[in-house]
Amino acid sequence: MTAYAVFLAPIAAAAALLFALLEAVKIKNADPGTEAMQEIASAIRTGAKAYLKRQYKSVAIFFAVVFVLLFLLAQAGYLSIFVPFAFLTGGFFSALAGFIGMTVSTKAGSLTAQAAQESLNRGLRIAFASGTVMGMVVVGLGLLDLSFWYFFLNWYYTNVQPVSASLRVEYIASTMLNFGIGASSMALFARVGGGIFTKAADVGADLVGKVEAGIPEDDARNPAVIADNVGDNVGDVAGMGADLYESFIGAIVATIALAVGAGLELAGVILPLAMAGLGVFASILGTFVVKTKEDACQKALLGALRRGTALSSLLVAASSYFLITNLLGGQLGIYFAVLVGILAGVGIGFSTEYYTSSTYKPTRDLACTAQSGTAPVVISGISVGMRSTFLPILIISAAVLASFLLAGGAANFRLGLYGIGISAVGMLSTLGITLATDAYGPVADNAGGNAQMAGLPPSVRERTDALDALGNTTAATGKGFAIGSAALTSLTLIAAYRDHILLLAQRYQLPLELDLGILNPKVLIGLFIGGMLPYLFSSLIMSSVGRAAEKMVLEVRRQFKEIPGLLEGTAKPDYATCVDISTRSSLREMVLPSVIAVVVPIGTGLILGSEGVMGMLAGCTVCGFLLAIMMANAGGAWDNAKKYVEEGHLGGTGSPVHKATVVGDTVGDPFKDAAGPALNILIKLVSIVSVVFASLILLHSLL
Amino acid sequence: MTAYAVFLAPIAAAAALLFALLEAVKIKNADPGTEAMQEIASAIRTGAKAYLKRQYKSVAIFFAVVFVLLFLLAQAGYLSIFVPFAFLTGGFFSALAGFIGMTVSTKAGSLTAQAAQESLNRGLRIAFASGTVMGMVVVGLGLLDLSFWYFFLNWYYTNVQPVSASLRVEYIASTMLNFGIGASSMALFARVGGGIFTKAADVGADLVGKVEAGIPEDDARNPAVIADNVGDNVGDVAGMGADLYESFIGAIVATIALAVGAGLELAGVILPLAMAGLGVFASILGTFVVKTKEDACQKALLGALRRGTALSSLLVAASSYFLITNLLGGQLGIYFAVLVGILAGVGIGFSTEYYTSSTYKPTRDLACTAQSGTAPVVISGISVGMRSTFLPILIISAAVLASFLLAGGAANFRLGLYGIGISAVGMLSTLGITLATDAYGPVADNAGGNAQMAGLPPSVRERTDALDALGNTTAATGKGFAIGSAALTSLTLIAAYRDHILLLAQRYQLPLELDLGILNPKVLIGLFIGGMLPYLFSSLIMSSVGRAAEKMVLEVRRQFKEIPGLLEGTAKPDYATCVDISTRSSLREMVLPSVIAVVVPIGTGLILGSEGVMGMLAGCTVCGFLLAIMMANAGGAWDNAKKYVEEGHLGGTGSPVHKATVVGDTVGDPFKDAAGPALNILIKLVSIVSVVFASLILLHSLL
Repeated sequence: MTAYAVFLAPIAAAAALLFALLEAVKIKNADPGTEAMQEIASAIRTGAKAYLKRQYKSVAIFFAVVFVLLFLLAQAGYLSIFVPFAFLTGGFFSALAGFIGMTVSTKAGSLTAQAAQESLNRGLRIAFASGTVMGMVVVGLGLLDLSFWYFFLNWYYTNVQPVSASLRVEYIASTMLNFGIGASSMALFARVGGGIFTKAADVGADLVGKVEAGIPEDDARNPAVIADNVGDNVGDVAGMGADLYESFIGAIVATIALAVGAGLELAGVILPLAMAGLGVFASILGTFVVKTKEDACQKALLGALRRGTALSSLLVAASSYFLITNLLGGQLGIYFAVLVGILAGVGIGFSTEYYTSSTYKPTRDLACTAQSGTAPVVISGISVGMRSTFLPILIISAAVLASFLLAGGAANFRLGLYGIGISAVGMLSTLGITLATDAYGPVADNAGGNAQMAGLPPSVRERTDALDALGNTTAATGKGFAIGSAALTSLTLIAAYRDHILLLAQRYQLPLELDLGILNPKVLIGLFIGGMLPYLFSSLIMSSVGRAAEKMVLEVRRQFKEIPGLLEGTAKPDYATCVDISTRSSLREMVLPSVIAVVVPIGTGLILGSEGVMGMLAGCTVCGFLLAIMMANAGGAWDNAKKYVEEGHLGGTGSPVHKATVVGDTVGDPFKDAAGPALNILIKLVSIVSVVFASLILLHSLL
Repeated sequence: MTAYAVFLAPIAAAAALLFALLEAVKIKNADPGTEAMQEIASAIRTGAKAYLKRQYKSVAIFFAVVFVLLFLLAQAGYLSIFVPFAFLTGGFFSALAGFIGMTVSTKAGSLTAQAAQESLNRGLRIAFASGTVMGMVVVGLGLLDLSFWYFFLNWYYTNVQPVSASLRVEYIASTMLNFGIGASSMALFARVGGGIFTKAADVGADLVGKVEAGIPEDDARNPAVIADNVGDNVGDVAGMGADLYESFIGAIVATIALAVGAGLELAGVILPLAMAGLGVFASILGTFVVKTKEDACQKALLGALRRGTALSSLLVAASSYFLITNLLGGQLGIYFAVLVGILAGVGIGFSTEYYTSSTYKPTRDLACTAQSGTAPVVISGISVGMRSTFLPILIISAAVLASFLLAGGAANFRLGLYGIGISAVGMLSTLGITLATDAYGPVADNAGGNAQMAGLPPSVRERTDALDALGNTTAATGKGFAIGSAALTSLTLIAAYRDHILLLAQRYQLPLELDLGILNPKVLIGLFIGGMLPYLFSSLIMSSVGRAAEKMVLEVRRQFKEIPGLLEGTAKPDYATCVDISTRSSLREMVLPSVIAVVVPIGTGLILGSEGVMGMLAGCTVCGFLLAIMMANAGGAWDNAKKYVEEGHLGGTGSPVHKATVVGDTVGDPFKDAAGPALNILIKLVSIVSVVFASLILLHSLL
């Protein structure tokens, strides 16, 4: 069976990329709309390309430096020689996925607006097709990268440097564990940079355009409007894609690494790859049921998307039963762990929706507190965010315990850890379609902007608004999914790190006794330092957003003052300068948080040793998860409380209640779109950095 | 030597209480001032007494119920029969300390105002004398309680139920470990209830009085002004006192419990008690240098207070050298651990001051961001709060590692843990004077209010303002000290919990193998659940403040509308109803958070067992510490940024910048005075609850 299953991943990778191509062609052939619409779309595309080009240039320098560093480490014997190269391929494929996804999504905005002129369903299909391209490219390129390396390493340790079968499995697993570093580094730039970009543009556009100049949202006269629309793609498409690409890669390689210690041999190594392959096919099939009647209501739209993800989940649940029973024989517990992971993903998504959607009590109550003023709505929003950690924590806790015990962890500890890993893989297996429903949102958002700027009839704007509102719901679910999968991936990486350290100690013939007890002061201090990291990291990012937004505000004000006829609509604003400000700021501002995310784990390790590192990883995961949920949900609740008021409740737009909710939403912007999501990256990145520098720390730590 | 050292604690207790009495007499004999001043003071005193009476009534019911519960547990063999009674004495002494401290401080407000008419130094002396009463009563009654039980248990296990000398030490230590429960329960009520009381009154007085009616702060026409002044005493005197009383007791009993496992026998048990005794004498001597020239500048005032605490610290540092070398012989490492604790206390106090005082960059920058509007100042404040976790985490980490290693933890793990405990005792040993400088603040604040309401000349208000500004600085330092000592106490309690569990298992002859590794899923889940607790707890308290404040707002508005002549000053407001609203709200609202703080640790234990409990305790300590610092410092920075603007910077009072900082300050109020400080209690309470229910959990947990 392993002989066949091993080909599932590469075949699925090819299928995903082919399907992405088909969807991209569908988009390309869609009606491009009026000239005005095309012009706007082209401005956004140009802005996005300019950003990506500059970002990739900076990233290239970073990758070159780190490649040299890793190469030297490898030469000195601290790393497998393949790691520096895998670092490059991982980063390259992640960047490529981001590039393709953004190219398509910036194109699809205007096409969706045009399609929405015909019917809601047409609009949905185009926007969702764009999301599907992003989803499929992410899983396709991810699996392509991993499959390539798996086959290459297998060939290498069979032909070039032949070793025994069991040692081969061990070498492959421990080498591949390091392969998350490329995707992680790229994700950091995409998420952190993207977050700063989009929020600087958003705040600048809103504060000066909406509040000071009194022009509507997405108005073509606003100099920052293109930067704002570019930002939606940069942050929510490329950033989210890179985030989940990293989780996808991280969960698979960590589970592969855990297979050896769990005594599952080759079958255990192949299972996560094959599961991910099954997920691709399930996702592709799922996309076919995402359609609705020509002019359905919003509920039907949501139903269509839900149907797609539900079908995919069911397909994975059913097919993985056969895969696991065939690969692992009687290990039905592992199968149940997969089910646990799938259910946990659904559960966290739902809890996010509950706390942030205005159809439920928390957000409605939040809107009501705005009646007492600005400070109360800010306090209550933070309070909602804090309370919203309760359910996700219970879900993740239950998932960890259940997958550990179901996999047989009571009898075989390391098999239990493998169970946790495979449940993360299960959660992420349907990433193709989950990401599609998520990356669909910014396209619908851009479609609305396009319709507004191009002056399409109000009926079109109504339809794009319906699509956009749906996008907000899927974005909330998607954010929950991203955080939940990041936490589970990070835990799997920590477990894999422990196995890795033990293996390395064995190789170096070091007498290593790991005391990971929480009362070991090194572990305890690690917990404290790791717990502090998310706070420091978030603080830096929020300050960065503040500084970047200030620059944007000054520029927009300058243009309104210095360009005659701009507010009257007789002159055009200078969009490019605003895009440039966001780009420059985001690239400069992401340096310090990035350095901290890399230096702290290495520094902690060099002082406190591997035990301190493990404590730090656990502390960072727990505190990062909590803070990320708090920020994402507080931000989401504020956003939707504002929208709820704008729908005409509690006084409607322009009322004092509305003004209070606008302040809440502005506070929430860097929470939910910059600092919060960046924490997903942080908790995975510190783990993966620790893995790569494990040998160095093991051999040279101070204590 | 042990034969003499054992009497240090009771003698010190008597000295502290006697000194408190002398200071109280000094206050009693002070010039009571004009009739108007006395009338105001009397209203505040009446309000405070009404609150305390009602609170003690509720608390009495709670204590009765828990006493019965503990008694039944003891009868069933899960607890020593002395624990229920120690629960009563602990709670009683904590309540008594709060009662005495508040009685004196509510009296001292008007006396300080009167004394300030003569000179700044006179005012300082009266206000500081009131703080000294609180400080001395807390340490005096704490040591009295502990000494009584120590001698009683010693007598009991010598005469009533005679056991061998070593077993006697073990019995005393393990029984006394449970004795924190009374102080902890009382602290919960005092801190949580006090926080809700004071913030409801504060927000109500400010929002309607200052913002809507446009009358100045502390104006006698404001119906909530007495409640506000009562609140300062309820929250910052009684609440802070109970908080540190709990830390003081907790650190001592936990260190006593660790002495047995560390192999230090009786000397190790007596050391923390004797150290605390030395600290009392050092504190008393320290108070004598707190005086200044008749009309000194503010810097000289701060210098006077600093001189007092510094002298006390030096005296403890010097005298404990002789104590330790005599008690423990060559164990100089333990002595260094004490020094580490003292230094850490100073360090955390300084870091709090740095982040929250307007003489430093963070708060000044924060005031500048208010120029961009309300949302930016809110975001930046949270960002400052988050960043401010960095230094305290480094300090606590360094203190933990240093005291562990210095005490000899590398060779003897449990001796290292004892080192951490004794460093906490070292930090808290000068509590007498530290608390005095802290509890001095609300008295100065009340003095200002009294001067304003009684219409004293502006020169008096200037002096009380100088005293009050100084109080803000000492309050910030005190808050840092309270959080830092809570964290160190909580870590000591966790270590003691582990020893306790091992001892119990031995007694019950259970084959217990504790796996406290962070990858043990039970520990990991414990970390997650424990980490979530502070978020849930803070969220509930912030909601409570919101609800209580809303009621207060409605009442103040009603009085302004329905009482004719109130705003013109011809009629008197109904102060009592406002005090009543704060009292009722705080008592009702504190039920749910309290229940959670008690039920979650027991529930976690009954499901996950002792390993899960330990994980939970660690998670709660780490996340609670971080969140408490974040909230306290963000709140402090907002408060002082507002004051900085009010001093005339960036446009001064009434400018848009000022309005933005007022919103920031209002957001910060529940942060720094309700939710933040309540976390100090939470992290200690969960540990102490876990200790008390350890047997139950050990014998009946599910997993």
